[in-house]
Amino acid sequence: MIQTVKADGRAEYEFFERMRSRSRETKNNVAEAVEKIIEAVRVRGDEAVREYTMKFDRRCPETFEVGREIINDALTAADPDFVSALLNAQENIAAFHQRQKTQSFLDPRKNGIILGQRVRGLHRVGLYVPGGTAAYPSSVLMNAIPAKIAGVGELVMVTPPGPDGRPNPDILVAAAICGVDRVFLMGGAQAVAALAHGTESVPRCDKIVGPGNIFVATAKRLLYGTVDIDMIAGPSEILIIADDSANPKYLAADLMGQAEHDRMASAVLLTTSGRLVEQTKAELARQIGRLERREIIEASLADFGAIVLCESETQMVALANELAPEHLEVQVADPMRLLGALDNAGSVFLGEYTPEPLGDYYAGPNHVLPTGGTARFFSPLGVDSFVKRSAFLYYPREAMAEAAPDILTIAAREGLSAHANAVKVRLEDE
Amino acid sequence: MIQTVKADGRAEYEFFERMRSRSRETKNNVAEAVEKIIEAVRVRGDEAVREYTMKFDRRCPETFEVGREIINDALTAADPDFVSALLNAQENIAAFHQRQKTQSFLDPRKNGIILGQRVRGLHRVGLYVPGGTAAYPSSVLMNAIPAKIAGVGELVMVTPPGPDGRPNPDILVAAAICGVDRVFLMGGAQAVAALAHGTESVPRCDKIVGPGNIFVATAKRLLYGTVDIDMIAGPSEILIIADDSANPKYLAADLMGQAEHDRMASAVLLTTSGRLVEQTKAELARQIGRLERREIIEASLADFGAIVLCESETQMVALANELAPEHLEVQVADPMRLLGALDNAGSVFLGEYTPEPLGDYYAGPNHVLPTGGTARFFSPLGVDSFVKRSAFLYYPREAMAEAAPDILTIAAREGLSAHANAVKVRLEDE
Repeated sequence: MIQTVKADGRAEYEFFERMRSRSRETKNNVAEAVEKIIEAVRVRGDEAVREYTMKFDRRCPETFEVGREIINDALTAADPDFVSALLNAQENIAAFHQRQKTQSFLDPRKNGIILGQRVRGLHRVGLYVPGGTAAYPSSVLMNAIPAKIAGVGELVMVTPPGPDGRPNPDILVAAAICGVDRVFLMGGAQAVAALAHGTESVPRCDKIVGPGNIFVATAKRLLYGTVDIDMIAGPSEILIIADDSANPKYLAADLMGQAEHDRMASAVLLTTSGRLVEQTKAELARQIGRLERREIIEASLADFGAIVLCESETQMVALANELAPEHLEVQVADPMRLLGALDNAGSVFLGEYTPEPLGDYYAGPNHVLPTGGTARFFSPLGVDSFVKRSAFLYYPREAMAEAAPDILTIAAREGLSAHANAVKVRLEDE
Repeated sequence: MIQTVKADGRAEYEFFERMRSRSRETKNNVAEAVEKIIEAVRVRGDEAVREYTMKFDRRCPETFEVGREIINDALTAADPDFVSALLNAQENIAAFHQRQKTQSFLDPRKNGIILGQRVRGLHRVGLYVPGGTAAYPSSVLMNAIPAKIAGVGELVMVTPPGPDGRPNPDILVAAAICGVDRVFLMGGAQAVAALAHGTESVPRCDKIVGPGNIFVATAKRLLYGTVDIDMIAGPSEILIIADDSANPKYLAADLMGQAEHDRMASAVLLTTSGRLVEQTKAELARQIGRLERREIIEASLADFGAIVLCESETQMVALANELAPEHLEVQVADPMRLLGALDNAGSVFLGEYTPEPLGDYYAGPNHVLPTGGTARFFSPLGVDSFVKRSAFLYYPREAMAEAAPDILTIAAREGLSAHANAVKVRLEDE
C-alpha cells in the first residue's frame, strides 16, 4: 500500500514533484462563487449572511452571536479530563509562545534624535473554526493563545452550526479556556466575508486566521489585502528521517498518524536501513487494523506516501531540506546533532519519544505550520503573526540641519526636487 | 489645486473612500500576459528571459550577470559626496535594523524536555530594482540592509538595462555599499520569474522584494507561494496632523514632496487651524514654481490631495487611525505626547523638523511601508521579513509517558485514533 523508492538522484525527486503537485489547485468556479458571496456580504451584511447560511447549512440561528452563558455551560458540562487536558496544553502552549514576544524599542541618538519601533497587538482578529469532523479544539488553542499573548484587542470566533443547529461544545470549551471574546455561529465564505467587512452583528477584523474548506480558503485568499490572513495551508505532511537505531513500530504509527488527516496528506520515511524498509511495511500492515480512519490512511499512503531508501545520513538531510516538510521527525541516534543541518522545516521532532501528536496538541510550539515546501521561506504561526510594527522618528532642528547635505545629495541623484525642497524650506528660516 | 474639506463626519470619509479606491487594480489582461511569461521562463529558462528582454527592452546583454569589476568601477567613479551620503545613510539604517534582530531560543523544561525556536536568515533573496526614473539607490539600501542583517545567505539583484544597454551606475554604487552578492541585468516579469524559478544563469531565490511597475507587481503576486514576496505596494501617501503651532511653509513642502512620487500619490493635511488652511494653500502656490515635477504634483494634489479642517485634536487622531497612512507627520506642539494614541501608521514623523525625506533616505527606519490603509495589519519591511522561524522539540520517554493521558484524551475528542496510536505504541514497550 505504500511505495518504496530507492534514492538515486532521480526517483525521489519524481516522487517529491508529485507530492508538491498536491497543492496546486485551480478552481476558478469556486473563486467566482466566493467572490459573489463576499460582495453580497459587503453590501448587505447580516441579511446576506443569513441567506447563504440557509442555503448551505439548511438552518440559521435567530441571532448569530453565541451568548456567554452558552459558552460557560459548555465548559461546566464538559468531561473534566478533557478540560484538564486542554488546560495543561494551554499552559505549555502559552509558556512557549511567551518566549516569542518582541518588545517595542526606543533608540535615542546623539543630537537629541529619537528613533523607535512600536510593536502592538492587532486591534481585532477573527478566528475561523470549521464544524463537522474537522472541528478541532486544538486548533482553537493554537490560534487563540498566540493572539492573546500578542495583545490582540478582541478575538472573535466564527464557527458553523452543527446538524442540530448548535455550536460544537468542544469548540466552545476551547474558546472559553483561551479567552476568546465573542463567538458567532456562522461558517463558510459568508462568515469570512463578515469578519473582513463587518456586518450589523459581526465587528470588522484586521486579520483572519484558522483552517477551513476550499470555500473558506478561497475567501481568505480573495480578501487578503482587505485584511491580513494567516496562510493558505495546503494538505498536511510528515517527513521522517530514521537510521538503523529507529523502531519500525513507531515509524509506521507516525506515518499513519499523519495519513489519517485526509486523502491528500503525505507521509514519507527516509532511511538508510534496508531492514527498516521491510519492517516498517510489516508494521503498517499490522497496525492499520486497529485504526478507525483506515480508508483515508490507505488512500493517502498509496498516493502520497513513500519509504525512500537512502545511501547516507547526508543524503537524508539534503532531501529533507529540499522537501522542506511541515513536520520533520528525526529518529536517529543522538538526534540533536542534526538540528543545525536541517534548514527547512516547520517543526522538528527530535528523538523516538517525540511523536508528532505531542506537537499537535501539547508540547508548546504551534501546529499551524507552512506546508508544501514553503518552510523554505514561511514560518509557523506565532505571536509575530498577531502584531503590527510601526516606526517613529524625531529630529531636532540642529540634527536635521546636520543631515541635510546628505539628504539633498541623495534627493538630487534620485531627481526628486520636492523631496529636497522639504528640507530646504526648513533651512531657510533663521 | 488642492481641495478643502470640512470634517463633518461624512465629507472626510467620502474623500478617504476615493483615496482608497486608488489601489484597487483589476487588470486581467496584464495577469494573463504575465502568466505566460512566468511559464515560459520556468520551462525554458535563460532563453525565454532573452526573448522577452529583446521584446521589451529592445536589446539584451550577452551575459546577464554584471561582473564584479563593473560594480567596483561604478563605486570608484562615483561622486564622493554621493558615496559618502549613502555610507552615512547605510550606517543609520543598519543601526536601526540591528535593533530588530530576534534570536533563536532554547527552552529546557523539567523532565528533560527541550523546546526551542530557530531563527535564521533566508537562504537566498532576490531584489528587484527598477530602471529609468524610478531607479532609486535608497530603495537598494532599504531592501538590502535588513536582508544582510537578517543573515540572508545570498542577496541577488536584478535591474533592467538602461537606454545604453547598461545598468544604472547609482544602483551599482548602492549595491556595492550594501554588499549585494550578485547583480543580473534583466527586468520586468521575466526577471521576477527567473528569480522565483531559477534559470541557467540566475539562482533560484526563496523571497523576492523590491518595487516595480504593474508587470513586476503582478509577477510577484502570481508567484507568491512559489516564493515569498515583500508586499504589493500601492501608491504612496502622506497624512499630516497639524495644530496652530505648525509652519505652513513646511506643511506645503511636505505635501508636495509626497505628491511628486506619481499622479496616484496622495497627500492629506488634517488641521484644527483655519489660518493654516489658507496659508498652506498660499504656500503650495508659492513653492510649486521651484519644483521640477510640477505637473505630477498638480495632478496628484488635485485628485488625491486634501486639506481637512478638523474640530479637535481627538478628531485628527481618530481620522489618522481610520486612514492608517503609510507616512504620518505630526506637526503639533509636543508631538511625542500623541504617539500612544496613533495606532495605525507605517512610519510616524514627529515634530516640524522631521520631514518625510529624513525617513525616506536617512534616519534609519525602513521606507518600505504598508500603503492604502493596510498599516492596520501590515508592518514595515524589516529584519523579520528576511528570516524564517522553525520550532523544535525533544521529549524523553518518561516525559512523553507523563503527557500521554492528556494527548490520548484530546485525540479521542478529535476522533483521530491514529494520532492516539502513535502515542500508544510507545507506551506498549516496557
